[in-house]
Amino acid sequence: MTLRVLGVDPGLTRCGVGVVEVRPDRTATLVHVEVLRTPADQALELRLLTIGRGLARLLDEHRPQAFALERVFAQQNMPSVMGVAQISGIALHLAAERSLPIGLHTPSEVKAAVTGYGNADKRQVTAMVARLLGLTELPKPADAADALAIAICHAWRQPQPAASGAPLTPAQRAWRAAEAGSRRR
Amino acid sequence: MTLRVLGVDPGLTRCGVGVVEVRPDRTATLVHVEVLRTPADQALELRLLTIGRGLARLLDEHRPQAFALERVFAQQNMPSVMGVAQISGIALHLAAERSLPIGLHTPSEVKAAVTGYGNADKRQVTAMVARLLGLTELPKPADAADALAIAICHAWRQPQPAASGAPLTPAQRAWRAAEAGSRRR
Repeated sequence: MTLRVLGVDPGLTRCGVGVVEVRPDRTATLVHVEVLRTPADQALELRLLTIGRGLARLLDEHRPQAFALERVFAQQNMPSVMGVAQISGIALHLAAERSLPIGLHTPSEVKAAVTGYGNADKRQVTAMVARLLGLTELPKPADAADALAIAICHAWRQPQPAASGAPLTPAQRAWRAAEAGSRRR
Repeated sequence: MTLRVLGVDPGLTRCGVGVVEVRPDRTATLVHVEVLRTPADQALELRLLTIGRGLARLLDEHRPQAFALERVFAQQNMPSVMGVAQISGIALHLAAERSLPIGLHTPSEVKAAVTGYGNADKRQVTAMVARLLGLTELPKPADAADALAIAICHAWRQPQPAASGAPLTPAQRAWRAAEAGSRRR
């Protein structure tokens, strides 16, 4: 039984959306990746409408079994944080309308999941996402790679089915170790 | 020609929604007021879904000609700011879906509009909203009064139709003076 996850890296200017399928042995394949964009000089409500409609379309086209989103903090006091929060509200509303199970993951949880290192930089995340999905090209821009990383992270953080009994893959071993490490911190 | 405005004071625990009609002479009457509530121990996405569905219902029931919302700043670094931003994203999305003209007003603009004083406290805002709408009881809780104040503020900030020529009401004179004062600051 594979798990199909749609991950979102929320943003007003660029909103990354990645859909992956993850098998019980935790290997992952790419289903779709897309970056929704809106012009910075457009009215806020039209930007929110464009991104909301794009997310609804992707949810209905790809019918994921789970929805994963980056957890946003008010402490990140950058100018874009309100736009990110507004997009995340719309995204969560769309997922809840479709009764999808929802996971919120912090940036360092996502980085630890895919690279084994919670402080990994964007290049490391992009490179690992490409490797995990067996892509011949690096996913671009960073928002696309981040959305895929969020989706993979979400699938890997699900409880392992007891019946599986499959040996751990190298990526899964790295993730287990990183997770144990982050618990000690 | 009256203008029917739906105003929202966004929040996860209590989201105030007020609908008013404002005539060209700027007198205002109450159409509806309601506070949408969600329990603090519920999952975030279910809370957003409940408030979003409530807002959609009120927009479709009361068919306002304009939509007004409190403008939220990331600088207000209270724990609730992310929830407020998420609700405001959903509210703006719902209004944009219905092609409603949208107004964002800061708390001090709203206070100045209804009381003539940008630093008015909650009690003064509530009392003035009751007086402006000719209510025999004070609107409660504060979220209800705030939503009505946002709707009134929005109507009053619209450009006066040139053909009107009606003399200014006392409330309108106070608002003009307060607005001129806030421009000097």
